[in-house]
Amino acid sequence: MEENLLVGVDLGGTTIKLAFITEQGVIVHKWEVPTNRDELGSYIVSDINDAIDEKLREIGLKKTKLLGIGMGAPGPVNMEQGLIYEAVNIGWKNYPLKRLLEEATDLPVFVDNDANLAALGEMWRGAGEGADNLICVTLGTGVGGGIITNGQIIHGVNGAGGEIGHITSIAEGGAHCNCGKTGCLETIASATGIVRIALEYIQKGQSSELSKVLEANGLLSAKDVFEAVKNNDTVAKDVINTIAFHLGLAIANLSNGINPEKIVIGGGVSKAGEILLQPVKEYFSKFTFPRVRIGAEIKIAILGNDAGVIGGAWLVKNELGK
Amino acid sequence: MEENLLVGVDLGGTTIKLAFITEQGVIVHKWEVPTNRDELGSYIVSDINDAIDEKLREIGLKKTKLLGIGMGAPGPVNMEQGLIYEAVNIGWKNYPLKRLLEEATDLPVFVDNDANLAALGEMWRGAGEGADNLICVTLGTGVGGGIITNGQIIHGVNGAGGEIGHITSIAEGGAHCNCGKTGCLETIASATGIVRIALEYIQKGQSSELSKVLEANGLLSAKDVFEAVKNNDTVAKDVINTIAFHLGLAIANLSNGINPEKIVIGGGVSKAGEILLQPVKEYFSKFTFPRVRIGAEIKIAILGNDAGVIGGAWLVKNELGK
Repeated sequence: MEENLLVGVDLGGTTIKLAFITEQGVIVHKWEVPTNRDELGSYIVSDINDAIDEKLREIGLKKTKLLGIGMGAPGPVNMEQGLIYEAVNIGWKNYPLKRLLEEATDLPVFVDNDANLAALGEMWRGAGEGADNLICVTLGTGVGGGIITNGQIIHGVNGAGGEIGHITSIAEGGAHCNCGKTGCLETIASATGIVRIALEYIQKGQSSELSKVLEANGLLSAKDVFEAVKNNDTVAKDVINTIAFHLGLAIANLSNGINPEKIVIGGGVSKAGEILLQPVKEYFSKFTFPRVRIGAEIKIAILGNDAGVIGGAWLVKNELGK
Repeated sequence: MEENLLVGVDLGGTTIKLAFITEQGVIVHKWEVPTNRDELGSYIVSDINDAIDEKLREIGLKKTKLLGIGMGAPGPVNMEQGLIYEAVNIGWKNYPLKRLLEEATDLPVFVDNDANLAALGEMWRGAGEGADNLICVTLGTGVGGGIITNGQIIHGVNGAGGEIGHITSIAEGGAHCNCGKTGCLETIASATGIVRIALEYIQKGQSSELSKVLEANGLLSAKDVFEAVKNNDTVAKDVINTIAFHLGLAIANLSNGINPEKIVIGGGVSKAGEILLQPVKEYFSKFTFPRVRIGAEIKIAILGNDAGVIGGAWLVKNELGK
């Protein structure tokens, strides 16, 4: 007899990631479908239902083997009501995702914010394994975050818990952020932020291999900056030192409140590995209360793009087990 | 028939506060005994037991009416084991407070950090009433804190959760803190910090009524600074603006992670009321993610010195009800 499976769904602006996952958190099937944003995202629920049905047919599995769906959406979520307050990239506003997806699939559905599910995924099967107190930061195009205390995600009073990307890193004169503020960590430690800061340094006229990369390619990437650090480029090293300072300070100060066991850094930028991790650790140590410093370990995420669907599966398992 | 009562105990460096409290959180009897710090605090447990017995005799109450003791200690605590990791002011190290006080009193005992109990007190019966997500900052000689998420205190991995006083406010060149770091919020927003900053301003030679107060009294208090603000003294206003900036930024950035419903500011310094609260609110608004800003309300604590014993009573009620 085949084992029961959990369904993880991770909704992004361009693709929907889906996976069938065992109750031990092992991915058995994983696939993607494009995100249809037409008519304010009103096709997404039926697209997910179709994608699941097709996969079941393809692998010859009965739907009764699926225990439920755990789905992440990019925006603040009211978990109890299963409501997406707002998902700007999708077009949803006060969208009753849980109810609609349950009606479409006839399966129990649990929803949460995508960055929160990534944190739960890393807690369950990733770099944060076993940590009841965990901070997860995702450095991608933007900066996302999920915080777990006492084994539970911090949703906060209106679903905006874990907005680590919007910690104010530069109090006066920082760059504008999409959120309406200035000086947010996201304007510094995201891939976009790293490039912005690198361009600022280049414009000051300091000699750097980054100027040559920019001239040759017409653009610059965060990866270019990390590559230049490997070649000992002074400007690139200054840029990464600036990023590490602000990231280290932000997670140190959050940790002075949270006292986490593990801090997991994920997202595309985290692929830089030790080049980023080493200076972040140094600044983190400098800015944390001694007891907090002793208790915490900073690690690079290991689940990559699978963190969200694995977190979704954990959510189903956890909610059904209540 | 008389109702059952909860015992709240709040251990400080100079006095032990005790109270008998109803299951609704109303204080029925409240008294203090001096803290005997002799022989590394080894008399404290029996002093507490004696104080309770004497009070019972005095009011003619049977001990069977007491449901249990909730006690706060000044230091990091392992709640499950009932262990005080360290209470520097008392002399305790890895002190099995729960076990010893249970043996002495024959009552169930639950222990937590004193700032955490103050936060629970304010959540139950004070300015944070009903908030499942709450940040409590106590501005006294030092700066203490307690954070509640999902209705539970954040203890963190080794009991150092809520160390808001040791958030790094000044990354480079800040004043030395007792914790070993520099630039902690405690060096700025405590009564001591306010005086230190005021003296720095005075030494710069700017004209201020604070110089006259200092000359007349030979010393300066945080209260003097707030009084001078009321008289529109420019230097005093600059000092409080500096304090408000750092306090507002620190709780804003913590809130960007926690998304609290209420932020409660207590301790002696908070008696300044609106003079402090107004600029703190302004900086808080400036530095918070919009959704976090909308969700949060900043208030002055209302329980004063009773917050700890009321939090202790809540702890007993909550733990016995599990």
